[in-house]
Amino acid sequence: MNKDVLTVMASRLDDEKQAVIILDQTALPNETVYKRHTKKESIWQAINKLEVRGAPAIGIAAAYGIFVVMNQSLADDFIAFSEEFKSVKAYLASSRPTAVNLFWALDRMEHCLNSNRNKPVSEIKLALREEAETIRQEDEEVCRMIGENALSLLKPGMGLLTHCNAGTIATSKYGTALAPIYLGEERGYSFKVFADETRPLLQGARLTTWELNEAGIDVTLICDNMASVVMKNGWIDAVLVGCDRVSANGDAANKIGTAGVAILAKEFGIPFYVHAPLSTIDMETKTGKDIEIELRKGEEIYEAWYVKPMAPKGIKTYNPAFDVTDSKYITAIITEKGIAYPPYERSLKDMFEKKENSI
Amino acid sequence: MNKDVLTVMASRLDDEKQAVIILDQTALPNETVYKRHTKKESIWQAINKLEVRGAPAIGIAAAYGIFVVMNQSLADDFIAFSEEFKSVKAYLASSRPTAVNLFWALDRMEHCLNSNRNKPVSEIKLALREEAETIRQEDEEVCRMIGENALSLLKPGMGLLTHCNAGTIATSKYGTALAPIYLGEERGYSFKVFADETRPLLQGARLTTWELNEAGIDVTLICDNMASVVMKNGWIDAVLVGCDRVSANGDAANKIGTAGVAILAKEFGIPFYVHAPLSTIDMETKTGKDIEIELRKGEEIYEAWYVKPMAPKGIKTYNPAFDVTDSKYITAIITEKGIAYPPYERSLKDMFEKKENSI
Repeated sequence: MNKDVLTVMASRLDDEKQAVIILDQTALPNETVYKRHTKKESIWQAINKLEVRGAPAIGIAAAYGIFVVMNQSLADDFIAFSEEFKSVKAYLASSRPTAVNLFWALDRMEHCLNSNRNKPVSEIKLALREEAETIRQEDEEVCRMIGENALSLLKPGMGLLTHCNAGTIATSKYGTALAPIYLGEERGYSFKVFADETRPLLQGARLTTWELNEAGIDVTLICDNMASVVMKNGWIDAVLVGCDRVSANGDAANKIGTAGVAILAKEFGIPFYVHAPLSTIDMETKTGKDIEIELRKGEEIYEAWYVKPMAPKGIKTYNPAFDVTDSKYITAIITEKGIAYPPYERSLKDMFEKKENSI
Repeated sequence: MNKDVLTVMASRLDDEKQAVIILDQTALPNETVYKRHTKKESIWQAINKLEVRGAPAIGIAAAYGIFVVMNQSLADDFIAFSEEFKSVKAYLASSRPTAVNLFWALDRMEHCLNSNRNKPVSEIKLALREEAETIRQEDEEVCRMIGENALSLLKPGMGLLTHCNAGTIATSKYGTALAPIYLGEERGYSFKVFADETRPLLQGARLTTWELNEAGIDVTLICDNMASVVMKNGWIDAVLVGCDRVSANGDAANKIGTAGVAILAKEFGIPFYVHAPLSTIDMETKTGKDIEIELRKGEEIYEAWYVKPMAPKGIKTYNPAFDVTDSKYITAIITEKGIAYPPYERSLKDMFEKKENSI
């Protein structure tokens, strides 16, 4: 008898399907605000202002969003409905020009529209709603399977360290790195979780501690530079992180700070697990050296969040948004299709063949 | 022909010796405010409110302070002067009850007072001024010698990483870990310095980047979790840190985050140097396990400095103020009397014998 510990959700359709309800993540952790959106302008704002964040969560919110807007359409034939759809799609796609998942989800909704072109508009609307829910359900299934696979490596009562936020509010449900923690909690595993605050944007402090706390999970916040101490204290049995992109040799790009934690874990003999949906594994990219790292403004380090600047104005900074963890520090890469172990050139390739076989 | 690159100073006597001028470090990096103190109450406040910080800097400010206050005394015999001195000393000693250096400096001033008991009060005042200046000069000499010894390990143009603030404003001049950087700059070494911001109290961002920048030194601010990336990029040739206490086996307690940087340095084959005045080496403490680590409040992680709290109110935290770097990660411990290499049980013992021989 599992209990569902997750009460929060990045976005969902409301009961009458007339609105998409999006958790405003910019107000966390101080206020839990779910905003009800019915107009394309407010959905655009929610994505643009990062009220919804995390690649899967953005895609799902956009899919729900385009359904909600089109569900109000007065068009009574496919041509008119389709014209309106294209305009709304282009508008929503402009809300965050670098979010690949946003375009992917909107394209998939358009494909659904076109597949149903011969049906009456009322039925097309139902098909769009169905498709948006399918996008969400598929992501939930990927997260759940990553969680199940990861959980097979963990034992009740373990101490776990995570970095950044690869959690439920970045996805449909469960998250990636946090998925085994939620599934374990549902089964009474009682993990003790340590969350790096994750400078400079503090996703760990603001989001990870919040969502784990909401689910009643034992979570302790530390500064990034305290990871080596909690490891030395013997409190950490495994490190769980998400990833943005994995290259064919198993190098993993993830939030800045991940690579350092991986080196510490190796030094203390602690397993380091990367949680990666197959969609983030890029077999065309040979190694991590080929992954370009976004450099961001220095003000993010010494001005963002603060009452007053915390370094001299105009000081030189180096502010990479991501880093690449060498595959030699990664104990396993956990996907929805199974667990890949080194050497990754081979095991990741096998993972994709497995995927094709299973289709 | 060396240039003196240091224009800032934690405290000094003013020209007429009627006041002690203390840099208000709580206003950094946004304002450079030197406050002129003549009354015991305002000197007490400056120490209590951490306007002056760093063990040597606190001791020096207190020595200057008690001279400045006693210099205004109207007492005309030793008994009356001495009574007043004791009262001022007890008052100033209460400004920061855990600062060993504060008591040490005030005791030394009292010893000077008593050694001059047979002189007229006007001459005792001169002796106290002399003693305060000697305390400052001795510290400057220790810092300078640590700097010279450390500089012998470095080459022009090197990239250096430092953590926290072991700089000029924590001492009389030069600092400890920053001493070789200043001495090198005076000789045209053109180091490229990277400063960890040093969460949660941001001494690196607020103080180290400020004082290096004031001296015209090339400094780049990074978040603590970016240290592994700058190392991997090949930008760091040595890591320079200070310390609070070194045990007989060479384990070094220093600001939280130091131990993690040491492990990363080892992984990347980068020398890791601890800068330690002999006064911080405690041969009575066998290993780092015997050093008790101060745990501080969680609000320091998620509330201090911020406009709004950055984690849910009351979230569990672990917030150690210091960590202990195992001696196996330390390439050398640099003192004013020379450089100690592993095995430290032997080399640190030798260092003290050397000290005794040189007296």
